[in-house]
Order: sequence, then structure tokens, then C-alpha cells
Amino acid sequence: MKVKVCLIGKGTVGTSFLQLVKNKRDDFKRKFNLEIIVSSIFEHDGALIAENGINIGEVLEAGKYFRNLPYWKEKVRAKDLISTMDANICIETTPTNSETGEPGLSHIIEALNNKIDVISSNKGPFYLEYEKIKNLAKKNNCFVKYEATVASCVPSLGIKEQLIGNEILSIRAILNGTNNFILSRMAAEGVDFAIALKEAQELGFAESDPTLDIEGFDAAGKIVILANDLLGWSKSIDDVKIEGISQIIPHAIDLAKSDGYVIKHLAIAENNELVVEPRLIERYSPLNISGTLNVVELETKYAGSIILMGRGAGGLEAASALINDLLSILKNRGFSE
Amino acid sequence: MKVKVCLIGKGTVGTSFLQLVKNKRDDFKRKFNLEIIVSSIFEHDGALIAENGINIGEVLEAGKYFRNLPYWKEKVRAKDLISTMDANICIETTPTNSETGEPGLSHIIEALNNKIDVISSNKGPFYLEYEKIKNLAKKNNCFVKYEATVASCVPSLGIKEQLIGNEILSIRAILNGTNNFILSRMAAEGVDFAIALKEAQELGFAESDPTLDIEGFDAAGKIVILANDLLGWSKSIDDVKIEGISQIIPHAIDLAKSDGYVIKHLAIAENNELVVEPRLIERYSPLNISGTLNVVELETKYAGSIILMGRGAGGLEAASALINDLLSILKNRGFSE
Repeated sequence: MKVKVCLIGKGTVGTSFLQLVKNKRDDFKRKFNLEIIVSSIFEHDGALIAENGINIGEVLEAGKYFRNLPYWKEKVRAKDLISTMDANICIETTPTNSETGEPGLSHIIEALNNKIDVISSNKGPFYLEYEKIKNLAKKNNCFVKYEATVASCVPSLGIKEQLIGNEILSIRAILNGTNNFILSRMAAEGVDFAIALKEAQELGFAESDPTLDIEGFDAAGKIVILANDLLGWSKSIDDVKIEGISQIIPHAIDLAKSDGYVIKHLAIAENNELVVEPRLIERYSPLNISGTLNVVELETKYAGSIILMGRGAGGLEAASALINDLLSILKNRGFSE
Repeated sequence: MKVKVCLIGKGTVGTSFLQLVKNKRDDFKRKFNLEIIVSSIFEHDGALIAENGINIGEVLEAGKYFRNLPYWKEKVRAKDLISTMDANICIETTPTNSETGEPGLSHIIEALNNKIDVISSNKGPFYLEYEKIKNLAKKNNCFVKYEATVASCVPSLGIKEQLIGNEILSIRAILNGTNNFILSRMAAEGVDFAIALKEAQELGFAESDPTLDIEGFDAAGKIVILANDLLGWSKSIDDVKIEGISQIIPHAIDLAKSDGYVIKHLAIAENNELVVEPRLIERYSPLNISGTLNVVELETKYAGSIILMGRGAGGLEAASALINDLLSILKNRGFSE
């Protein structure tokens, strides 16, 4: 079986996706008799387009000079061309715009309107317009998958399928690795917020403008998606009570520590309310993870807490989630091993 | 849609399964338009049989006096009657026999020979005769699911489906809550093994004959199943190098502690080898769980470690895993929401 893919965005995640498709080509052929053909790769200023399949090895080798390849089309836009792409699946990996969700939102809508299944690592569209996207997908009999948007490779959304005989009641999670790194450093070294942030930036764990992370908007977007998917809610990011970590002082962390607690930046969905804020948790709680890890604790009706943890960021990590989504869609489309 | 179930074993897990089917009846009807009909419940000395469906409420109310119900048939055996049951799914919840796998193994084989899908919470048959069962299921186009056999409700087997775009390289796990409780108590209180074991027995966390747990056979059986399912191996319990926890002395735990380590009873699958033995792990490792919890750490090719944890035992916990398996089989059989 051949599946034709339109990739939008050739940043870290998009490039890692291409890398994985290349690495796993033989594997897919042997295990699933599956061939993934990438027929277009869109960037903001043009696209690589080859209807019969782009030579991925060549694109990867070209690195940042991919615009010099002969099949680069200048100034074409994904939004205008999706309908002409004859793709089975559109993979949206552009950066999140937390105000408008664009251009990802338009890409997703355009794909669905053309009855193309969608996989996204871009979370903005989902915490802004969850209902709209879901309804449009339903109307057009399309699948929309977005495992990579929350905790990256950790299957925090897919796990629902494995708990269908149970009932998820509430969620407590740490969904922003940058903030968790900063709080971990503050606790371990007794340094204040500004120094820990600077360290995170130097190590590449924090953006040069870290506002979305440290003020809690990133985690807020993710808990919206988790709650909507796992608890069946219909919230948007406007419904989240958000408090960041920039006001936390070393003294507060010390006080907590002396009582056997740590301060963590939790994202919580319970009692029909969404909250992102610093909270005390017990030192020996499974939520007390260090560094840039993510953790998701699901309180269930029949089996207490079920906890997942792992890396919450990284190109290959997110790309592996995209591939999971892709194989899952193919399976749901009746494609079998 | 109606699905007819033959339940074998009316112990803690079997009874909890009935409880869940009863609790979730309206839910199943509303969400999936699904009706689960339990037409037979086998015990070692007879069976409740009602072709059109047993009144589950009545059975639960009868408690241990269920043999007094009018549809109790004395001395009939599951093995002899499975072929006549007209069941879609056979649910095997008899206790594990670690030497022979019986009677569970025969039940499973008989069901598959009659083209009945199988769900099991009994792990013996799977760590003894994994290949045989898998081949028989394949030959008869049947599904065999057994999520409850490893870490109970924690979806340690089902997770594979959510990581299909990744690749699981190795496994490190704590799969026996009894041993973990004993080691946790020894570490926290400085008591010796015999005292911690006695405490576990008094609290109902350990059997009166705790051999299978403390000598590591229980965890060994589980790591066989995990490795075969997640890593594609074909091992049996004879391939596991096993060392129990009864020789661990408080002094060793103290020494470890003073260096920042704890002693945990790990089950490991890596480099084509299966090992169950006490190991040192760092105090802040996510594997350092306390009490009767279970944890499974999957080392993956593209996303580092992915960790799952939760309760590894309990009737409702296991029953929720059975229900997951049931819904998963129905989905694979083309039944949709």
C-alpha cells in the first residue's frame, strides 16, 4: 500500500519526520508492506513539490539549502495548494501561534475540507478551536490526530484507547519541560528564578523569549487538549486559570523542602475546572520528576492513578508520535499488517 | 450489538468483572450500543448456565452462595462445555498454575479450537506456552488478549500500539507489588525480611505461601510476557535468570542508602536476556516506586525512556483490563461506536 503525504513545515519536527520516514522505509515495507510517499514539503516561502514522491535523502542532505533543489517552487502557499495535492494525509508541523493558531489552523481546515486526514504537532489550533476542528473532521469523515501536541512522544492521548474499560476522572500533569527544569535547578542549587532561566536558555531548554513557557500558556494549551480528549470536555485556553512560575522565590522552595514538599508547576483538570499553577507536592510523589521530563497522572474510577512519563520535547520524539498517528490512521482506514 | 461471554473462574477477578459489566451496562448501551451477555460462569465444581444471559445482579447478590441458584449445574467442566456455549468471547480468570498452566491452558486451547476469542487474567499459560497459544489463535483467526496478566490495569502491553512509530529496545520493570512492598518497608523501617514479609501477609499483600512472589517466579512470568509481546521475543519462564529477595539483609539496604541508592527487585529484558533479581537503582530514579505499585520503563529508539506506573493488583483493576481487552477485540472485529 502507498500513502501520499503532504508535509507542512520543515523545522525541527518536520525534518525529524523526514528522517524517520527515511530510516524506517525498509521496516515499513517489510512489516506493513507500506510505502510513505512525501509528495510535497511546504515552508512559509514556497514548497518542494514532486507528485511521484520527493527524494527524501536528497532533501535531508541539502540541509538548510533545500530551496536550491530543482523542484523547489517559490512563493507557493500550503493553504492554496492543499486541494490540488492528491494527498491522503496532511502533516502540520508549523510553529504554534497562541493568539490565532495560524497558519496551522487554516492548513488543517483546508485539508479537512478536501477530505484529507490530518496529523499535527502544532497545538495552537487545538486549544483555540477544538470543537470546530472536531466537527469539521466528523462532517468530512476524516481523522485528526495530534499526539505530538501534548508531552510529545509520551502517548498521553492514545492511552485513552487502552483505558476504555475504565473511566478517567481527572488529570494532574507536568507538561512544560522548561519550567520543570527551572524549578528543579532552583530546588537543587538554591539559585533564584532569573539565574535558573538563564541556565535553561544557555542549554537550549528555553526560548530567547520564554514568556509562553514561564507564564504557563504552553502548559495551559496542553491541558486543554488533554481534558477535551480524555475527559470529553469542550474547553479552550480562555477557560484555564493560569499562573506562571516567575514569582517563585528560593525561600518558598526552601520552606516547602523543609516540610517534605517540592514546588511543581502543575496542569490540572478536575471538577470541570482547568488550572495551571505552582503547587506543593510531596517529595516522594511520582509527579516529582526532575529536569525536562513530562508526566501525566490520570485518576481513574476503577484503578486509582495511572501515570505516564517521558521526554516532553525533541524533534525525533515528536516525529515518532507523528508516525504513530499515521499508522493509527491507516489502521482505522482498514489497512492491516 | 450483543456479545456473548463465557466466564471461567468466579474468584476476585471474575467477580469484579461481573461487577463492572453490571456497573457499566447503561454506559455500554449508550456509548457503544453494546450489550454484554454472560451466558455461563464456570467454577471448578460446576457452572451457572443460562443461554439467554445470566442475571448478574442475582449472582452478585448471592455472593458465595451462588451455587444455590436454580441454574447452577453440578460437576460440569468448562473444558468439556466450551464448544457448546455459543460464546463470542471466553474470559479465563482461574488462578495461575506455574508448573502446568492448568486448567487455564486447556480452557484457552479449547476456546481457540472452537474459534472463540480469548481474554485472560491468568498468566501461567502465556509464560509457559506463549508460542503455542499465539499460533493456535492465528490458525483459527482468533484474538487472544491478556493485558491483566502484567501490571494489572496499567496498559503495559497495549502501550505497544501507541508506540508503533517508535521501537522498543529494552524493558526494566517492577512487576511484583508484594516484593516491592517488602523492600520498601525494609528500607523505611530498617526491619529485616521476615518481619516485613509478616507485615505484608497481615495486610493481605502477600499470600500465606509467598514463595512464587518472593523467589521471583511471579515477576519472571510477567517479564516473559512483556518481552514476547513488546520486543517480539519467543521466550518461556525457563529462559529467565531468577533471584528472589529473601536473602536481602537490612545492612545491604543501609549501605545502598548511604550511597544514594535503593535496592529494588527488577525484571529486565535486554540484549536477548531475561533477568529477575535485586538491583541497585538511584534514589531519584523513576523506578524508585514505593508500596505495592508496579512500574514499567521502556527504552525506545527515538524517544528515550517511556515510563508507565500504577497499581499492579486488585480485582477491579484487573477487571478493568479485561473490559479494555473486550472492547479492543470488538473494535478489531469491526464493531464501531
